Amino acid sequence: MSKNSATTTVVDTVTTGPIVGSSKVYKPVPGTDSLTFPMRRVHLTNGDHLDLYDTSGPYTDTTAQIDLENGLPKQRDNWVKPAPVDGASTQLAWARAGILTDEMRYIAARESVAPEMVRDEVAAGRAVICANHKHPEIEPMIIGKAFGVKINANIGNSAVSSGIAEEVEKMVWATRWGADTIMDLSTGKDIHETREWILRNSPVPVGTVPIYQALEKVKGDPTKLTWEMYRDTVIEQCEQGVDYMTVHAGVLLRYIPLTARRVTGIVSRGGSIMAAWCLAHHQESFLYTHFRELCEILRKYDVTFSLGDGLRPGSIADANDEAQFAELRTLGELTKIAKSYGVQVMIEGPGHVPMHKIAENVRLEEELCEEAPFYTLGPLATDIAPAYDHITSAIGAAMIAQAGTAMLCYVTPKEHLGLPNRDDVKQGVIAYKIAAHSADLAKGHPRAQERDDALSKARFEFRWVDQFNLSLDPDTAREYHDETLPAEPAKTAHFCSMCGPKFCSMRISQDVRDYAEQNGLATQEDIDRVIAEGMAEKSAEFAELGNQVYLPLTSR
Amino acid sequence: MSKNSATTTVVDTVTTGPIVGSSKVYKPVPGTDSLTFPMRRVHLTNGDHLDLYDTSGPYTDTTAQIDLENGLPKQRDNWVKPAPVDGASTQLAWARAGILTDEMRYIAARESVAPEMVRDEVAAGRAVICANHKHPEIEPMIIGKAFGVKINANIGNSAVSSGIAEEVEKMVWATRWGADTIMDLSTGKDIHETREWILRNSPVPVGTVPIYQALEKVKGDPTKLTWEMYRDTVIEQCEQGVDYMTVHAGVLLRYIPLTARRVTGIVSRGGSIMAAWCLAHHQESFLYTHFRELCEILRKYDVTFSLGDGLRPGSIADANDEAQFAELRTLGELTKIAKSYGVQVMIEGPGHVPMHKIAENVRLEEELCEEAPFYTLGPLATDIAPAYDHITSAIGAAMIAQAGTAMLCYVTPKEHLGLPNRDDVKQGVIAYKIAAHSADLAKGHPRAQERDDALSKARFEFRWVDQFNLSLDPDTAREYHDETLPAEPAKTAHFCSMCGPKFCSMRISQDVRDYAEQNGLATQEDIDRVIAEGMAEKSAEFAELGNQVYLPLTSR
Repeated sequence: MSKNSATTTVVDTVTTGPIVGSSKVYKPVPGTDSLTFPMRRVHLTNGDHLDLYDTSGPYTDTTAQIDLENGLPKQRDNWVKPAPVDGASTQLAWARAGILTDEMRYIAARESVAPEMVRDEVAAGRAVICANHKHPEIEPMIIGKAFGVKINANIGNSAVSSGIAEEVEKMVWATRWGADTIMDLSTGKDIHETREWILRNSPVPVGTVPIYQALEKVKGDPTKLTWEMYRDTVIEQCEQGVDYMTVHAGVLLRYIPLTARRVTGIVSRGGSIMAAWCLAHHQESFLYTHFRELCEILRKYDVTFSLGDGLRPGSIADANDEAQFAELRTLGELTKIAKSYGVQVMIEGPGHVPMHKIAENVRLEEELCEEAPFYTLGPLATDIAPAYDHITSAIGAAMIAQAGTAMLCYVTPKEHLGLPNRDDVKQGVIAYKIAAHSADLAKGHPRAQERDDALSKARFEFRWVDQFNLSLDPDTAREYHDETLPAEPAKTAHFCSMCGPKFCSMRISQDVRDYAEQNGLATQEDIDRVIAEGMAEKSAEFAELGNQVYLPLTSR
Repeated sequence: MSKNSATTTVVDTVTTGPIVGSSKVYKPVPGTDSLTFPMRRVHLTNGDHLDLYDTSGPYTDTTAQIDLENGLPKQRDNWVKPAPVDGASTQLAWARAGILTDEMRYIAARESVAPEMVRDEVAAGRAVICANHKHPEIEPMIIGKAFGVKINANIGNSAVSSGIAEEVEKMVWATRWGADTIMDLSTGKDIHETREWILRNSPVPVGTVPIYQALEKVKGDPTKLTWEMYRDTVIEQCEQGVDYMTVHAGVLLRYIPLTARRVTGIVSRGGSIMAAWCLAHHQESFLYTHFRELCEILRKYDVTFSLGDGLRPGSIADANDEAQFAELRTLGELTKIAKSYGVQVMIEGPGHVPMHKIAENVRLEEELCEEAPFYTLGPLATDIAPAYDHITSAIGAAMIAQAGTAMLCYVTPKEHLGLPNRDDVKQGVIAYKIAAHSADLAKGHPRAQERDDALSKARFEFRWVDQFNLSLDPDTAREYHDETLPAEPAKTAHFCSMCGPKFCSMRISQDVRDYAEQNGLATQEDIDRVIAEGMAEKSAEFAELGNQVYLPLTSR
């Protein structure tokens, strides 16, 4: 924010400090002179630690100076920027030319893969690096099915709610808990200014839907939109540093009547805006007819297209219908055009889809859009649970991510009911980290299971504090535990409130294990052998052990 | 509770009254003289209504007299009880003999299917009717993959927490929100008395794990358990009216060492109790060696076996291992034995399973256990989210139910951390109603989508109150809505806080639909025709309409 801006005092504080039990560490990016990337180190009580992918930026670094007025350091301004290839200064163009950029090396280190693999996935259009040249503050990340599944958190004010400070805090808060990108969907006043505060202070890529701001410029009347003012809005946002933009260029005039008999018509805001425009003018969408000009603009900044699904289903009844898939075919055409300009592309997906229709969405998207990264909203697996749509959609999200979706747009408990507040943002992020991580496990993503194993070992060994600190939300895990057993000694007790001190299945398991190991059953071969021999002679020993073990702790 | 019981004043109140917007209706059970079954009627503001499957019993009936001391009316005592078949007075024996019981007719009416279909599924062992002759208070229900997916809520005190009144309220509260069965897993004091209060007042079948009470009788030392005292405990619980019992009879001596090298060993309480006993005595489990005697006892009361998975995985790392599947093979043997006695059987399942290993569990269970109803605990799709395991497990539960699981045992946010309180019980039930309903949709269960469609229509038509009342939790849906737009007029407003009054995608969709219908686009044929003809001449009309529509509501 410039010093003479009228808004320099709008935001004076955000959440800082590490997540409990963790600290920030920086590791070198191989192949670069001095670049480092951040990880969150969880310190365990047994002296070990686990390093986790970290989206939270400098806010969780106790040594960082946070200056919201001046924004985060513009670190990428000092990185090597290769020369344009075929007129395009984009990660896609460079990847195709075989160039390894600093962003690719940084991402490779973050994802624990080879830089060449990052480059090849980007070159193939199967992954995108959303990093506007004018957004040097971000820590580069990648969206593609070969990498960890990412999640996006939507924030933004509307005409009836929320101010700039609240939205900036939501951005910091969402990335603290694991949001990989942020979309600013503001539709109320101060759209430009809100976005400026978010962009300058966000450690993650920021996406927008430019048609929202364009609509504000015509006082909410979509029929008054023009290509020229839309284009100018896109340029304004590119100049500000937006990293990816949702463009509903697949809502064609001839598809609109296909929605007339749906249960819930058109539920995408962008889709309905363009539908209203197309019908009023009886012309093809200017987003479609001017798409090549859009490509030229986005290419200049390396802004990534997020081709919006303006006709996505808004209910179970409307899932996978002709309107939806007709638009998807058009998005496939546009994908090829964008890539021919060297512009990176991802494809947005539904919405509301029953479980048995989810896989078909991924299959068609990959077939029609050359495996461009799929970026889905949920989908919600049922319509009947407003106030719990973070759960209805986490089910669909986990499944669609397992099937190949690269990024999941979160849904909060307030979906369909109101604007999410700070706590709703956290609920949405956590639910989506669960979905994304579950998919990483199911896809066999390297290192994903390390965290599950570390937490389960801590659980088994009654290292309560480690179990809390390794979890997605240490604060709440501890709080729930303390509701029944608040005293500090309970954190090291070899029992919990579910079974009480007299009996504990975990403890018996540990006894079984100890018994097995003490009796030459350390390997599977040992076990097989002893099974064959019979274990009669060991019975007495165990009985002795057991008679100690199962006495109440208090009497030991 | 007998009048001279010392505990008659233990429970004096529970939650009563209908869920907001609903009332209880009773419908006749075809083929019976005077039986009726309950439904919950949701009254809509457009004069319509939707009748829903109702598990809440008389507590939501404003005309019912609730007398907790005397319990619910013993309605099934007056029902026809057929003569034994081959010595068995069980729904399975009667079904095999081609007899349609009152319970089957009642269930058929409840599920909107033919009574013969209920009978045939029970006869095949693919479905169970958990209804102890000594539990006449319940409203019969069915568990089987051909029917709606059911959910169970676990309640019960432990040595460190909770009293009888609290547990009875949890039972009423859980069934209010949709629990189809209740398991009383009490392990603390007053186990018999707590169960008595729950049984006499529960409108749904009640399950237990008898080994828990047996363990209390030997002061928590599993090595002191004997077949005789276990048997007596089972008889005590059968006499009281327990409808199904978890029996971990598949934990064989030779399987126990298979768990020694697991990350989390044996996490089932019943499994670890039996493992400790087997190792200490170096004998085969008395549950296994005396299984036929158990069959004879359960047959007398028509208590259903829930064959427990004592070696279920307690972490992602341990899923689908040899210990788990070895036990499942034994459960398959026991299933055949139980059925040969005319005893109904369901099979319990995991636990913690990553998504890609879920389907294999169902496939093997069906193959090994003759498609006996599968009854799974979640499974949790990841280990990393204690405090959110209602969500991690709702993901697994929805998927495993889609694959054929008949009943889902809920998991609350407190899983792994503490005992669930009343609010946790509701969170667990709602998450599992979401999972079960999502699976019903995916399986194409008849009538399941009616509720989604009704809610989505209400949403599309801005019938806010109907959207709330059709949801799984009307109270919370309304509360969330009111956080941003509290005023009563907002309930009928044609906008919401997400977009504000100036613009609304739902409203535009309605305009598209109105436009389409007003212009002869009421059918798909109309639409195809007009697409072919082009719509130029209609553009002007829409522009006129649009200019009215998109003005702020306040200026209309």
